[in-house]
Amino acid sequence: MVIIVKIPEIREYVIEKLEYIFNPRSVAVIGASRTPGKIGHEVVKNLLEGGYKGKIYPINPKAEEILGLKCYPNIKEVPDEVDLAVVVVPAPIVKQVIKDCAEKKVKGIVVITSGFSEVGNREEEDEIVKICREHQIPLIGPNVVGVLANKSKLNASFAPDLPYAGKIALISQSGALIIGLIGWTWLHRVGLSTVVSIGNKADVDFSELIIYFAEKDPATNCAAIYMEGTDAGREFVEACRRAAKKLPIVVLKAGFSKRGELATMSHTGSMAGSARIYGAAFKQAYVIQAKNLEDLYDRALALSLQPPLKNDLVLVITNGGGAGVLATDAAEKYGIPLQDTPKDLAEALKKYMPPFGSTKNPVDLTGMANEAWYYGAVTEALKHPEVGGVVVIYCHTAITEPMKIAEKIAEAGKVAKEMNKPLIACMIGGEEVEKASNWLKEQGIPSYPIPDRAMSAMGALREYGRILERIGYEK
Amino acid sequence: MVIIVKIPEIREYVIEKLEYIFNPRSVAVIGASRTPGKIGHEVVKNLLEGGYKGKIYPINPKAEEILGLKCYPNIKEVPDEVDLAVVVVPAPIVKQVIKDCAEKKVKGIVVITSGFSEVGNREEEDEIVKICREHQIPLIGPNVVGVLANKSKLNASFAPDLPYAGKIALISQSGALIIGLIGWTWLHRVGLSTVVSIGNKADVDFSELIIYFAEKDPATNCAAIYMEGTDAGREFVEACRRAAKKLPIVVLKAGFSKRGELATMSHTGSMAGSARIYGAAFKQAYVIQAKNLEDLYDRALALSLQPPLKNDLVLVITNGGGAGVLATDAAEKYGIPLQDTPKDLAEALKKYMPPFGSTKNPVDLTGMANEAWYYGAVTEALKHPEVGGVVVIYCHTAITEPMKIAEKIAEAGKVAKEMNKPLIACMIGGEEVEKASNWLKEQGIPSYPIPDRAMSAMGALREYGRILERIGYEK
Repeated sequence: MVIIVKIPEIREYVIEKLEYIFNPRSVAVIGASRTPGKIGHEVVKNLLEGGYKGKIYPINPKAEEILGLKCYPNIKEVPDEVDLAVVVVPAPIVKQVIKDCAEKKVKGIVVITSGFSEVGNREEEDEIVKICREHQIPLIGPNVVGVLANKSKLNASFAPDLPYAGKIALISQSGALIIGLIGWTWLHRVGLSTVVSIGNKADVDFSELIIYFAEKDPATNCAAIYMEGTDAGREFVEACRRAAKKLPIVVLKAGFSKRGELATMSHTGSMAGSARIYGAAFKQAYVIQAKNLEDLYDRALALSLQPPLKNDLVLVITNGGGAGVLATDAAEKYGIPLQDTPKDLAEALKKYMPPFGSTKNPVDLTGMANEAWYYGAVTEALKHPEVGGVVVIYCHTAITEPMKIAEKIAEAGKVAKEMNKPLIACMIGGEEVEKASNWLKEQGIPSYPIPDRAMSAMGALREYGRILERIGYEK
Repeated sequence: MVIIVKIPEIREYVIEKLEYIFNPRSVAVIGASRTPGKIGHEVVKNLLEGGYKGKIYPINPKAEEILGLKCYPNIKEVPDEVDLAVVVVPAPIVKQVIKDCAEKKVKGIVVITSGFSEVGNREEEDEIVKICREHQIPLIGPNVVGVLANKSKLNASFAPDLPYAGKIALISQSGALIIGLIGWTWLHRVGLSTVVSIGNKADVDFSELIIYFAEKDPATNCAAIYMEGTDAGREFVEACRRAAKKLPIVVLKAGFSKRGELATMSHTGSMAGSARIYGAAFKQAYVIQAKNLEDLYDRALALSLQPPLKNDLVLVITNGGGAGVLATDAAEKYGIPLQDTPKDLAEALKKYMPPFGSTKNPVDLTGMANEAWYYGAVTEALKHPEVGGVVVIYCHTAITEPMKIAEKIAEAGKVAKEMNKPLIACMIGGEEVEKASNWLKEQGIPSYPIPDRAMSAMGALREYGRILERIGYEK
């Protein structure tokens, strides 16, 4: 009986109803607490501080009021409809709470509470899921940090801050990484639309989230997934294939090593599976892989801000020969080996460099390059019909101001947009350069500190381009 | 005749005399200028602003005084001895200037001026080198940014700032990267002793610098090299082998790809050579390779701050399962696959975690871990006789202060030092976490933003350990 519940499937009602979780009109926090530091307190506080505009109902039989909000002893006593119930009560009470939620006809549930299948308590988890499925209420969790969505300013989690706003949906199977990864989004200006901690994924799985983000959430245009393992591999592949036209998906698969696989199993109880099996599945699923956490964000950032790369001719434009060589090496590594600069373009580029510059690809404007040369060379390249995209590299010099260069790169970004071609920057230097690089990201130009990472990002755009060539571009 | 000059060799007088370049009692800037923005002006300014305490003699026949310093029309007219001559005059005059330097008996020369072999003007370069070799004056360059040394507060370059102080000597064949890479040292607290732009390496080559840093410079304990190519491969290998006991050497070889090789040749005129040949040579040379610019600094930082890893048992201690899995994957990638926690240690570690923590390797203290648990677990592991080193990972949580964790990790660092075992940190999070991570580096604990980079650093320490096992530890 219980077994039926656990057959993995992609359920359309879940995809439809996830909007209630990420964009609810009202949220109840069941297990809300008056005591600062307790998760039940922090979730209410985070909802308030995040700027959520809907109604918030703290549920606690022993409190009148929490953080200035009227408290209810039971969700059933809330006078209005409740879209989202966030559950933080101790594990033994969760089942009863879920029953109450079903009775109240909440539209979606997030169970933060841990102590279920991840510690061997699968039976109770199955029972909870059974109730939710009977009532067609999607449940995220249990054992999660929560969910955060910038579109509704919803911070229904115990992570202190909403992420820096952008278009990437982050789905993480590790809760512990989430707070750190949200911190990164501010530090490195990697914009996220949504953060989902999927925990034990007892009910809602990767597959449904992926389809929701592809089909139902205009705020999201890329998914970044930290995955340890899944028991619903077929559904995952199916969902990714269904989503692929609209949503590039980048996955960091942890547990690739032999021992990593064991560590994963002890950590989440998921089957990690061999690297080979996952690699094949990801290919079939049109999934773009990332090699580490930085690469996950690097690639997702490019995919969220720039169009796919539609051919293999990437022009690298640099003011430093060494950085150009490194970019050339990286281009090969990431599947977009550099090709010669088209002859007429090479001729045209001579205007933007001294006689000892190089029009070969990588194009070397030399250390004399000013912002006008950068702008001229980058836009000239972008406008050339054979060029698919441009990686522009700036090595800090004693005579240039990084912000001025960044401003001209951003301006060239407008030409890139008109041409529907990707433009990616790499800015090498200290504090001032990092500031300019972050500013560029705020303007929609992905920017990276080293050529290797910039080329990996462009490589991801090419991978997505190849996927779309195979399955057809969106009409 | 000219050919004789160019036979590569390791010359002992160069190794002896390099100290005059990196720690000169007096510096002449030949081609000093009154005009801000000109290299001849910037070099004088940088010497002053860097805090160099020796005498500075600007040389310019048309000026009385530059930046408050008395000017001389020719180096021969300087009344005192000159240790280092920095040459910034136009290329056609360089030869005459070198003759003057020889007559003046300067002890070392840095030629910043470009326009020699890198643009095909090899003859003049050879003639200059011939003069220097006849007079046994080591010459760095031509076509360089200059040299910078923290031990003498010498900024004899047109890079605006001395690097953040530390023990790594950076040798770069790319001048354009240098200013950016110096900026990084401040941003990421990667301490350098010295920066050498070696440019055309017409006279002083990698080999002599490496031996100097190994044998003559107590301020340096690691070399980080950005290399595009060398014509003196045998000397390079010989020098590295001679230096290896005292000096771990990390090399980022650019031009590994097919086209990168071509780009290198057009850029520096060096033979880049195939990846295979270089790979074999590096192995023979006991050189540790880096895979990109970040990795070059990551690995050098660890090697400059921590002892080599003397066995394969690295314990990973984390507060997040996901980060532990990623570290496990990375450990395998970098040649130090994780092994089981010794049984008695596992037992002892239980004191520092809740019942649902894990004493397996990676050790998971869980999100509940406070600084005391971190300290206890890390020091317990370091003290265990079978453990070779520890990687400690912190994922930011809502209930911990990264600085407090960092302080305890630094304290555990003292135990690591006593045990002569490496300790490496990984701190995942936003601005506050980055601050704590940078502070840790200032305390001598290498710290990285993701598990992959931390494990690469520990992998480098193991590589160096294996090298020393082969050639014998220093007595």
